[in-house]
Amino acid sequence: MTTDALVTTDAARTYAMDRAHVFHSWVAQDLITPLVITAAQGSYVWDGDGRRLLDLSSQLVNTNIGHQHPKVVAAIQEQAGRLCTVAPQHANDQRSEAARLIAELAPDGMEKVFFTNGGAEAIENAVRMARLHTGRVKVLAQYRSYHGGTSTAINLTGDPRRWANDYGSAGVVHFFGPFLYRSAFHATTEQEECERALEHLEHLIRFEGPDTIAAIVLESIPGTAGIMVPPPGYLRGVREICDRYGIIYIADEVMAGFGRTGAWFAFEHFDVVPDLITFAKGVNSGYVPLGGVVISEEIAATFGTRAYPGGLTYSGHPLACSAAVATIGAMHDEGIVENAARLGETVLGPGLRALAEKHPSIGEVRGLGVFWALDLVSDRETKEPVAPYGGTSPVMRELVAACLAGGVLPFTNYHRLHVVPPCTATPEELAEGLAVLDAALDVVDAAVSAG
Amino acid sequence: MTTDALVTTDAARTYAMDRAHVFHSWVAQDLITPLVITAAQGSYVWDGDGRRLLDLSSQLVNTNIGHQHPKVVAAIQEQAGRLCTVAPQHANDQRSEAARLIAELAPDGMEKVFFTNGGAEAIENAVRMARLHTGRVKVLAQYRSYHGGTSTAINLTGDPRRWANDYGSAGVVHFFGPFLYRSAFHATTEQEECERALEHLEHLIRFEGPDTIAAIVLESIPGTAGIMVPPPGYLRGVREICDRYGIIYIADEVMAGFGRTGAWFAFEHFDVVPDLITFAKGVNSGYVPLGGVVISEEIAATFGTRAYPGGLTYSGHPLACSAAVATIGAMHDEGIVENAARLGETVLGPGLRALAEKHPSIGEVRGLGVFWALDLVSDRETKEPVAPYGGTSPVMRELVAACLAGGVLPFTNYHRLHVVPPCTATPEELAEGLAVLDAALDVVDAAVSAG
Repeated sequence: MTTDALVTTDAARTYAMDRAHVFHSWVAQDLITPLVITAAQGSYVWDGDGRRLLDLSSQLVNTNIGHQHPKVVAAIQEQAGRLCTVAPQHANDQRSEAARLIAELAPDGMEKVFFTNGGAEAIENAVRMARLHTGRVKVLAQYRSYHGGTSTAINLTGDPRRWANDYGSAGVVHFFGPFLYRSAFHATTEQEECERALEHLEHLIRFEGPDTIAAIVLESIPGTAGIMVPPPGYLRGVREICDRYGIIYIADEVMAGFGRTGAWFAFEHFDVVPDLITFAKGVNSGYVPLGGVVISEEIAATFGTRAYPGGLTYSGHPLACSAAVATIGAMHDEGIVENAARLGETVLGPGLRALAEKHPSIGEVRGLGVFWALDLVSDRETKEPVAPYGGTSPVMRELVAACLAGGVLPFTNYHRLHVVPPCTATPEELAEGLAVLDAALDVVDAAVSAG
Repeated sequence: MTTDALVTTDAARTYAMDRAHVFHSWVAQDLITPLVITAAQGSYVWDGDGRRLLDLSSQLVNTNIGHQHPKVVAAIQEQAGRLCTVAPQHANDQRSEAARLIAELAPDGMEKVFFTNGGAEAIENAVRMARLHTGRVKVLAQYRSYHGGTSTAINLTGDPRRWANDYGSAGVVHFFGPFLYRSAFHATTEQEECERALEHLEHLIRFEGPDTIAAIVLESIPGTAGIMVPPPGYLRGVREICDRYGIIYIADEVMAGFGRTGAWFAFEHFDVVPDLITFAKGVNSGYVPLGGVVISEEIAATFGTRAYPGGLTYSGHPLACSAAVATIGAMHDEGIVENAARLGETVLGPGLRALAEKHPSIGEVRGLGVFWALDLVSDRETKEPVAPYGGTSPVMRELVAACLAGGVLPFTNYHRLHVVPPCTATPEELAEGLAVLDAALDVVDAAVSAG
């Protein structure tokens, strides 16, 4: 890394050129002040002032293996020197090996992988496969979900980012998932919430017309929407409903997959097997853009002698696949998935619940592995969120500022603080992070009690 | 590169694992025998038998700078060691610099760049911008076009790959572009074709309702659909129509941009300035997945204080942007765009026209720069294509086999052979390629005259 003086000079230019020429995702362009990131290593990033920040965001919950893992960096460098790009109609060793390793992680009977550049295209293609396999058009998805930014993916999304993209023509119907803390079903126990959520889903299917529905798309654990771990029987119930009506079950594992929850795929916690699995992010920690769909044999067979009408120039990109091969290898060799599970059980779960004891603004602590959310409220009785749905608030901005001031890069969404470090974090790093959050949450408590 | 024995062993495994686990783009999975690509350099690739092939496909018309350009490879390796990934909400030096360089290449008044992973997402976002900027929904696109594989992009596409994805709900209306050789307008001169195509477009707009149309999306020179260079006044006429009705002009430069036509952008040949430019492929030759949209100041201002409802995890990916910075630098330093122009004027244009003199199966030669198509026909009078629209034929398969046997990796689409080498090819390499095509076209002539 460079000297402080150089970092500062470069960073000023980076910032100026960003503001002049970079159009950013999801925001009003004139109302942002992007943080310059100049370097990263393991659980840390460095900002434009040369200040080290503990990355409790994993950027966009993608650096599951931490920043700049040496084995993955070396694999990218070696493959770059060997063969960067090959068109999707050809075969290539890195593409073959990445597909083999991913199929090996998936349940039996899911042997084929269609590669994309990211999660949105994975969803687009999973929906395409389901529609053509079933001959049906409609797709069901949950409110409180995120599935990507392209046309079909954003219309499946159950958050306010859909609204400006919704022309009523995407063939999507939304339903409510189980979420006891803010129950749509007036339930009082997890068991009751689970039963009522399944009943709601099945009612909705009967009234939409089962024969019109191609697929149900579900984040196994909804991520950006709030990390709502479903009750034990829910996904099994969804699987049964899908079987009953000939509906394809698409498990969206873009954020929850590849170690985030302490398992390779989050659906493993719930003893179910989907028909299609979408992945991205953790598959190679986003070191090179990559996503894809793991496909059941039955659906793959639909496109055995009939052309599959989807594709992209960089499908199975050798450089991206080489990063996936190295990432999966390192995760196996270094017990990274097991580390994520252990961090959830021994550090983050207990640590965040201890914060909730202390801070009245924490309404609920939810999560597992390295995938946690704090639901922040102004009143524990009414559960009034500290920011409106789809928006932010002064107190949330103060929380972010306090985290940064304490040396933590946080992930927030509306009224929630997510704690989503790399799967490779150490207990010591997370203890450091929890101490910063502890102090930052005092700011929220104070604002809430004053307000 | 490895020994022949090792290449063969590795290649057999690569092929077997590909067939077991890789689901390929756009094809019936059981009806293909993918070519194993083990290495590449400049204008050449090596197959699983260690055989060298001249790459007249540029893979999917993306390796404009040739394979494994040392400056781009070095930039990727250096950036991989420094910082692979940064979330889109932050600022980063490679992202800032890539955006600055791309804005510098674009016309004045287009200063902002939104980065995506590829061309389809670029189109999705350009259409989103146009719809929200105008408050209108419908988008016009040409028959005989390709715009990408995601929901909106494939529905804009004017080729048979759309059909299985078309549920009649995408808000797209298709029109016919100028194409004198297969005129939709009964025209007999380029001038007449141009006038009638513009008249057709304007009639269609009046009958669709000008106030319902957000944008017209046009490949500046349609690529996979047949490399139909528009007549001189056509794009200027489209620009005038757009201005007359308040419609956004989106120039799709995904395939034609970044040197392919002997200019940085293909629209430069026609003296027009679009409102939005989509790019991908040539921006970094696909060494790392990257695409994007260059945005007019007027449209960017729409999202100054209003949130832009689109985005993606890998927007402005540092590794992809570092490859773009190095690619654009090398193209400037080495005169690569000028080389492409010269190859078109002095080698490919004359060379392909000479083949047409000789081979009755060549109905038309079209193109410029390193972007050429041979329209293959069984009868020059009727212009009957040697393969049906959307399909292939025995003679086209024989043509591909003859090219490969001669040491050339070809690009074919339906009844056409495209000649689309890297912009960095040498006249000697292309002379070698033309000789192989000459022999291969004898096969087509023979089949045609026999049939």
